Amino acid sequence: MAVQLQAPTHLPPVAGVRLAVTAAAIRYPNRNDLTLLELAPGTQVAALFTRNRFRAAPVQIALEHLAQGDEIRALLINTGNANAGTGAAGLQTARESCRVLAEALGCAPQQVLPFSTGVIGEVLDLGAKVRAALPELLGGLAPHHWLPAADAIRTTDTVAKGAYRQVEIHGQTVTITGIAKGSGMIRPDLATMLAFVATDAQLPAALLQAILRQASESSFNRITVDGDTSTNDAVVLLATGQVAHPPLREGDSAFHGLAMAITAVCRELAQAIVRDGEGATKFIPIRVQGGRTGAECLQVAYRMAHSPLIKTAFFAADPNWGRLLAAIGAAGIEDLDVSRVQIHLGGLSIVRDGARDPGYQEEAGQQVMAKAEIPVLVDLGRGAAAEEIWTCDLSHEYVRINAEYRS
Amino acid sequence: MAVQLQAPTHLPPVAGVRLAVTAAAIRYPNRNDLTLLELAPGTQVAALFTRNRFRAAPVQIALEHLAQGDEIRALLINTGNANAGTGAAGLQTARESCRVLAEALGCAPQQVLPFSTGVIGEVLDLGAKVRAALPELLGGLAPHHWLPAADAIRTTDTVAKGAYRQVEIHGQTVTITGIAKGSGMIRPDLATMLAFVATDAQLPAALLQAILRQASESSFNRITVDGDTSTNDAVVLLATGQVAHPPLREGDSAFHGLAMAITAVCRELAQAIVRDGEGATKFIPIRVQGGRTGAECLQVAYRMAHSPLIKTAFFAADPNWGRLLAAIGAAGIEDLDVSRVQIHLGGLSIVRDGARDPGYQEEAGQQVMAKAEIPVLVDLGRGAAAEEIWTCDLSHEYVRINAEYRS
Repeated sequence: MAVQLQAPTHLPPVAGVRLAVTAAAIRYPNRNDLTLLELAPGTQVAALFTRNRFRAAPVQIALEHLAQGDEIRALLINTGNANAGTGAAGLQTARESCRVLAEALGCAPQQVLPFSTGVIGEVLDLGAKVRAALPELLGGLAPHHWLPAADAIRTTDTVAKGAYRQVEIHGQTVTITGIAKGSGMIRPDLATMLAFVATDAQLPAALLQAILRQASESSFNRITVDGDTSTNDAVVLLATGQVAHPPLREGDSAFHGLAMAITAVCRELAQAIVRDGEGATKFIPIRVQGGRTGAECLQVAYRMAHSPLIKTAFFAADPNWGRLLAAIGAAGIEDLDVSRVQIHLGGLSIVRDGARDPGYQEEAGQQVMAKAEIPVLVDLGRGAAAEEIWTCDLSHEYVRINAEYRS
Repeated sequence: MAVQLQAPTHLPPVAGVRLAVTAAAIRYPNRNDLTLLELAPGTQVAALFTRNRFRAAPVQIALEHLAQGDEIRALLINTGNANAGTGAAGLQTARESCRVLAEALGCAPQQVLPFSTGVIGEVLDLGAKVRAALPELLGGLAPHHWLPAADAIRTTDTVAKGAYRQVEIHGQTVTITGIAKGSGMIRPDLATMLAFVATDAQLPAALLQAILRQASESSFNRITVDGDTSTNDAVVLLATGQVAHPPLREGDSAFHGLAMAITAVCRELAQAIVRDGEGATKFIPIRVQGGRTGAECLQVAYRMAHSPLIKTAFFAADPNWGRLLAAIGAAGIEDLDVSRVQIHLGGLSIVRDGARDPGYQEEAGQQVMAKAEIPVLVDLGRGAAAEEIWTCDLSHEYVRINAEYRS
């Protein structure tokens, strides 16, 4: 029941990246649960990981491998098991899975990055699963397998998520293609769920990491489904450098165009995660402006986005603006002058100068709330800062999914 | 569907307090929605109010009246309308309701404190409603009407809430009786929902306020249903001084005994609110110990208590401890050493040294989770501070109530 979101029907290949998926029976049989991205020599990799203190084993191993500085040649992604809260046994099996794959690819273990998502706290023998799957994985590698990969990395996602852009760099077309998974436990903290974005442009590692930080800040770091930050979040940006264009320099317009396109792909993927939020029936962009700082705008926006009362009112299509007002007042801005607060819902003025807008009609509010996409605009009336985040509603389906998941 | 909670069947009178309830048709007909507490001369009053920046009109007026320092002679409580987000019209009608009642009681308007709870953002003519209800209200005043008052102040509460203690002060028995309402929009911030606690002991105003602060800190300020802080929260402690006992002094054992009894009444009322949390099927005390400061223990406890994933797992009776672990790791303690974290669920060791306890059996976890009351104990392993809070689960019923409420 994703909100105005359909699975992608076309994701263009990125020169230098080949993909394969297979069913390795990690948790369930006959389900594609293992995905391989093989990267051409010379590919630059930037990555961000969850700030949760309980980092899953694959996150710890990926960080360890990146720290060694060798060229990354493969990403290995499994669903069905998060390999988190699994202690030393989890680290060992994550290492083993990289070693097995590296041997088959003819590279070193530290040139493989592992990613896992699924149930927390169960130890699995990932090394053995990968070994058994090697023939299918290596035999299936192809540049045009982005769609099956988007499908194979799903867990509670109801819809596969992918996005792409193509831009010109000094007359050469470069492609940016990305895929992501995520539906619950979504409140990225300086990182995200699983997302993999690749371009065939040439970007040195430092620029790549800078672009990724900036793009994530206005995409994956601006979404929340349930306020819960996962132990396994990771976002990876790859640049294979296979398109021959003149070198890019920070600040020139081609660089700017490429960074914008990468950000656009990240935003589309991030919003897709919210549109497919567990049980979501509404997509809700929340913009808070007129703050003194961006931080206080975000504070107010997240307070609203995490309020179960507000989320259930959106589910019920009930313009219960009193709940918005209560959340804004409780967001922790001690010197907020409530008489300067304005609230718009889908373009409709609801609260003027801190109280119900005298011109507001309940029927008009209900019309706005009946839509699938309901933008909330709050003006704090105390400064020039503004921030926007995206969230979804809280439905019966959310409770059902999370009361039943794990079995 | 309150969790192991029944309405009180006996609440003893407090000398110096008379109560009355009546149906004033504030939102619905034939429902007791107006409550009066008349206080004997000499009664001391202490009160705490919501820290939400959007304070309802009655909260603003109550603070204004208390600031004038005159003796308080009456509390006037209505349900059906919170008189919040109502601007100047709301302030005016709250003032008018005090004036009408004061005139009938023969006191000044600033000797009346108004309290409102119910829907936010709708202006009502409270003055007219109170005027029409005066004969019934004044005619119905009696010392033994605590039970009907507990009933009349309910909104989405499924069960009336009351508690009492009787203690000896130098051979004299004094009574402490309290009532409260609250079920949703519960995350008090240095104040609480509506609670009224009275004693016939003699307590000077300064001591009374000190006791109330301390008692609230370990009762109303330790509960959360949904993380939403109301615009109308208020807790009031009354001391009528009608029992003739020697003066109390801070630090003597009789004072300590009285303060403990008042705290016990406050805790019982606070826990009753959580047990009757909207849609609650489980009562969950969360204790976090081994922290460096109480603040960081509370940070971890509330992060767990506000996680929809954890709350739905409790609803499903699913020992999904991975969600507990993820919430602890995301609670913002940057230097948390996860290998020192222990988690117990209902006395059962679930996580040892940051990973699944090797001795943990899923069946044992399921047995614990099947109970109506499930204590969570987290040891952070980094200090001597400890804190406890109380919360409930998130059920289908919660979504239903909040998707349907207001109509």
